[in-house]
Order: sequence, then C-alpha cells, then structure tokens
Amino acid sequence: MDNNKTIGMVETQYYTFAYPPNELELESGGRLGPVTLAYETYGALNESRSNAILVLHALTGDAHAAGFHEVDKDPGWWDNMIGPGKAFDTHKYFVICSNVIGGCKGSTGPSSIDPKTGRPYGLTFPIITIKDMVNAQRYLIDHLGINKLISVTGGSMGGMQALQWVVSYPERVSSVIPIATTANHSPQQIAFNEVGRQAIMADPNWNDGDYYGKELPAKGLSVARMVGHITYMSDVSMSEKFGRRFKDIKQPFKFSPEFEVEGYLQYRGDNFIKRFDPNSYLYITKAIDYFDFTNGKGLHELLKGIKSRFLIIAFKSDWLYPAYQSQEIARACKLAGVETVYCELNSTYGHDAFLVEVEEQSHLVKHFLERTTRGFSQA
Amino acid sequence: MDNNKTIGMVETQYYTFAYPPNELELESGGRLGPVTLAYETYGALNESRSNAILVLHALTGDAHAAGFHEVDKDPGWWDNMIGPGKAFDTHKYFVICSNVIGGCKGSTGPSSIDPKTGRPYGLTFPIITIKDMVNAQRYLIDHLGINKLISVTGGSMGGMQALQWVVSYPERVSSVIPIATTANHSPQQIAFNEVGRQAIMADPNWNDGDYYGKELPAKGLSVARMVGHITYMSDVSMSEKFGRRFKDIKQPFKFSPEFEVEGYLQYRGDNFIKRFDPNSYLYITKAIDYFDFTNGKGLHELLKGIKSRFLIIAFKSDWLYPAYQSQEIARACKLAGVETVYCELNSTYGHDAFLVEVEEQSHLVKHFLERTTRGFSQA
Repeated sequence: MDNNKTIGMVETQYYTFAYPPNELELESGGRLGPVTLAYETYGALNESRSNAILVLHALTGDAHAAGFHEVDKDPGWWDNMIGPGKAFDTHKYFVICSNVIGGCKGSTGPSSIDPKTGRPYGLTFPIITIKDMVNAQRYLIDHLGINKLISVTGGSMGGMQALQWVVSYPERVSSVIPIATTANHSPQQIAFNEVGRQAIMADPNWNDGDYYGKELPAKGLSVARMVGHITYMSDVSMSEKFGRRFKDIKQPFKFSPEFEVEGYLQYRGDNFIKRFDPNSYLYITKAIDYFDFTNGKGLHELLKGIKSRFLIIAFKSDWLYPAYQSQEIARACKLAGVETVYCELNSTYGHDAFLVEVEEQSHLVKHFLERTTRGFSQA
Repeated sequence: MDNNKTIGMVETQYYTFAYPPNELELESGGRLGPVTLAYETYGALNESRSNAILVLHALTGDAHAAGFHEVDKDPGWWDNMIGPGKAFDTHKYFVICSNVIGGCKGSTGPSSIDPKTGRPYGLTFPIITIKDMVNAQRYLIDHLGINKLISVTGGSMGGMQALQWVVSYPERVSSVIPIATTANHSPQQIAFNEVGRQAIMADPNWNDGDYYGKELPAKGLSVARMVGHITYMSDVSMSEKFGRRFKDIKQPFKFSPEFEVEGYLQYRGDNFIKRFDPNSYLYITKAIDYFDFTNGKGLHELLKGIKSRFLIIAFKSDWLYPAYQSQEIARACKLAGVETVYCELNSTYGHDAFLVEVEEQSHLVKHFLERTTRGFSQA
C-alpha cells in the first residue's frame, strides 16, 4: 500500500435533475426542484458498470474526497483512503463521492438561489432528511448508468447515509461500510447539535436565516464549530496535542485564548465561516438528529431479508459515536441473518479516527471489498 | 439516616474584610478590597471550636447549601447531605458553606460595586484563582474563630477549593473530601469552558462586560449553560431521562426545540440569566482552567508531609471529571504517604452524581468523619 500516491488533479462535476413539475419528493411532504448535486468520480467505470463505490461525507464535508483541485494545497478529505492501490483502489473501482442536498458545497441547499424568487432560499428551504439526501443520490447513480453499487460507505453522517441506502435501495447495493456512526442519535448527540444550532440562532446577524449579502452570523457559527471540534477529538488526543501549554501572547486581554487548546478552537471556529453556510449547519444537523434507521421498528426486523453485506467499523476512543452504537447495528445484523463483519479499532483519535486511522481501515476495507466482489459466501 | 429531615429555615450571612489599604493580595499580583463573602452555617460550633466543616460549591453554586430560605421552595443545593443525622450531621458538626469571590451570590465579584468608581466592576474586576478564593475563605474561618477544620469538602470546583485548602493551609485542615474533581483541567475540560466563554462574548449585549443596567447577554449565557448541562449528565442518564421523545409543540418553527432534550436544554439555558451573572461565568471558569493543584511539580512531591487525611470520591459515569483524574490524586497521596481512602461509585448520573447519589456518599462521608474525629490512625 502506497499512501503517497494520489489520483492527481480532479474536478467537481454537477448534475441537475428533478425539474418542476417532477421535483424531488421529500420525507416532510414538501418538494424540491430543480436539484443540483455536486460530485466527483475517481477511477474508471468498467464496461459492465459493475465496479462503482459510493462514498458519502460527514456534516461539513463535500464532494471533494480525493485528489487535488487546482486552487487547493490540500487533497480531498479521504485522499488517504481513495486512490491507486489504496483502500478504495481506483485501479479497480470507480469511486463516486456526492455532496448532500442541504449543504453549501455545490449541491442545492439553503444558500442556493430559489428559481421561484431569484433569491437564496434561506429558511424557505424545506426540511430535509438523510433519506432525502439518499433519494437525491439515487438520481445521480441512475444518471451515471449504474444499476448496482459494490459498496456504499462513509463515516459519521456518511455512515448514516450508507445505512439509509441499504434500507431505501437494498437491491442496488452489494455491501455497506458504515464507519463511526449510529442507527439513530442519542439525546446527548442531539444535545450537542442543538447547542450548535442555538449558538448560530443566538447571533443577531443570523436574522432568521436571511443574511445572504449582509453581515454573516460568523460568531455564532464559530461557537457551533468549537463545540463540534471538542466532540471530534478525544480526551487523550487533546491532551497529547495541547496539554496545558500556553500560547505565546503579545498583548493579552483577560479572556483571550491563552491555552493552546483555546487558540486552536478559536482558529478553527473563526475560519469555518469562510467555508460553511450557517443555515446549512442548521438543516444538516437537524437531518442528522431526525435520522432513525430503526424507523421505530426493531433494528433486526428492518434488516431481515437484506442481501447486502456489512462491514461495520467503530473506534474505541470515539465518544461522539461510541462503539456501543455500532455494536447495536452489528448485533441486529446478526439477528437478521445479514452477513456482517464488525471491527472495533484501537485509536486515540476519537471520532476523527475515521479520517486518520488509514492503515487498519485500509486493510479491513480492501479485504472486505475483495470478498464482496468475489461473492461473499464463497470467501 | 433520615434524609427527609432538614435543618429548617436558614439565612445567608455576610462578612466583609480586607478593607484598603489591607486588601486581599491576589495570585495575579492585583489587589481586591473590601471583600465580602456570603456564607451560611448549620449546626452549632462547640466550645472548643473544633467541630467545623467547610463545604465549598461548584461553578454556579452559592452559600445556600442546606435548609430553606423564606422565599424559596427548594432547599439548598446539598440539603440531602447536610442536616440532622445526615452525612454532614448538624447534630455533631458546625457546617459552613462559603460563596466564592468572583461570583454573583453575595460575595464580591464583577457585578459588585467598585467603591472607587461607584459602578459595577465589570471587566475591571481582577483575574482571580482558586487559590484566591481559598485565601478569602481563610479570612472567614479566622473571623469565626476556628483554628482547625475537621474537614474541607466539595464537588467539582468545590473539590478544587478543598484540594487547594490542604496545600495552602495544611495545618488548618484535619481532612479533605474532594468529590468528582481533578488536580488540574485537561485541555478537553478547558475547551468546554472556553466554548461557554466564547458564547457569552459572542453576544453583542455582552459589550465587553459593560451590560449592567442594560440589555443582558442572555442568549450567550444560555448557550454556555446548555454546553455545561450536557457535560453534567451522562449519555445513559440523558437517554433514560429523554430518549428520542418529541415535545408537544403547538406552533412548530423549523428550528424550535422538538426533542424533549432540546426543550430541557433551552429551558435550563433561558432561565440561567435570572440567577447568574455572565461576567462571573467568565471569571470563575477561568479560575477553574488556571487551577493546577500540582503547581508544576509532581503531585506527590507537593503532598509530602501533609498530615490531612483524604477521602477521594469519583463516579464511574462522570465523563466531565473522569475517575482517572481522581485516581491520579489518590495515587499521589499514597506515594506521598498521605492517609487516603479512594472510592469510585457506580452511578449513571454523570458529573451530577455528586449532587444526587446521597446514600453511598453519606455512608462513606459519615464513616470517614468519625474516623477523622477519633484520630485516623487509631481507627
């Protein structure tokens, strides 16, 4: 495995569909259209169109999962996992990454122009769910002429989408790899999201979501992002990274960041406004909180008859999506007779582990995909 | 043990000292005076003035630890632990609870009037530390004519003060009972406090701390409180209390609280402004973050020669002050040859356990105090 190899330069593409009157029907009963999805593809689709893998991103992610854009120094968010010879080997597989609806990275979301008014949707954007995101992605997969995906995968909210794919379109996915995720949010997880939302809405610049072209609710979004960052790291990884060290401060104000961890959070928070839309933060966190893969039934009831194979990965130090939540999914799979591999990896990186623990994840994913393509049962 | 017995009606008292030019010297090098401490006492001081216990409160606590005030329905915050026949038995002991400087519950803090200007201190209030809080309490203990305390105790920040007492005034405390606390804040703990501070300072009404008599930074303080509440509970206790249940909403707004946990947080957040000063929240959280009982040395070096006995209590589900932090103190005590009892209690209540897990705590505390008063070594 050579993780230094990247797939090189890539470009984001856009697919627009669901033009009125055939809008995307939403779970809430509302309708949305036209809908644009930003997406990227890596590797080549084979002649039988049977080597495609769909990769889905977390809360603030985007379609740019691998390779480089001309303007950026940094590669895509999962470049260490997608590329020639890597876990999702672009020599073998055609890898698609789709941005979610509700976002602000090229797909239709609250900051998009509503064709009916010529102005950004803002809060007139309808409530969307993980299921709606997946339904939109299904249009894209149809458009690419792919009948069946070898695998659908993602970490965190990406894992929720992967789980939803298998329930919404069981015949169209051979396997699913949900990583560091859950079948539904616990009240603690809802609470962390709610604090972020309240921080945004407490900012007077938020102005009921009508701030486009005006002063942005940057401070509110910054606080939301700071809360998020705490939950993405672990107690141990923060201690290793920052300790109780002080920053080098020239002109200290009483309550300016003094500890290194404070400076880090503020830097992360303040920069977030440059790349993320506060309304998207509200809509997407709400979609995550609504998500309930169990759909009110017993999880194993829901999974009965599912032919797709599962590789479920959790991390011991992930306290945002604790391993017990992945274990619940794995247990339900076993009960439902679904072929399942469950792996709990030792990592001190907390929830961020799914982005940085490359080696073990790669090993698991490669092996699992090989077995999936060969036919799981003969493995 | 009869936990229904309370000590009845109580009144907060006030002691003012450190009049200029003999102000309280602060760790920062600044000076503060005059200083008022709000405090309450329960039970009677014996003739030899040898039955006193000092109880210290957490971040948003106050001097009203037990009994009832005429205007309130609810008793003091540790009424289940302090009273006739209870853990801190007022038949036997004279229990003192002192509010901290920097607070807003009757002791001198940023919302107090600066006698030099006739206006509230606001941000001209000096930075204070846990050590400063303890130094101020020492004046109170002198004033009450008490030479040696049987015990100093408290949970969370109260535990930090208790630890500081034993280092600052080792000859004046026979024992110390730090509960659900730490020798110093980890970066994760600092980070949670920093998010609260940033939320307050992001509120335009905060106005660099100059909001007295004007619009209060209620929304910022509310977000800070919401973050706090998440850390006080456990994943399990939140799940048991709220599950994924929805509130009954009449006129739903897209981003109004829908899940019960959201409603709870908002209620707690919104009400907090009625009882707590945002600037006090900044000053006290900063004091907590600065606190370093180790003082840069090895913890056991610092504890060498200490004659006070330790009862250290931690709770398994407390993830804000995880048990490993209490274990570190206990280990250092053992290394330093300090007589120590360490207890880790099974509780699902998270950090809040120190306020609600009465039975086991009472058992431990009673037994420990009896041994302390009889002389530990003969026990």
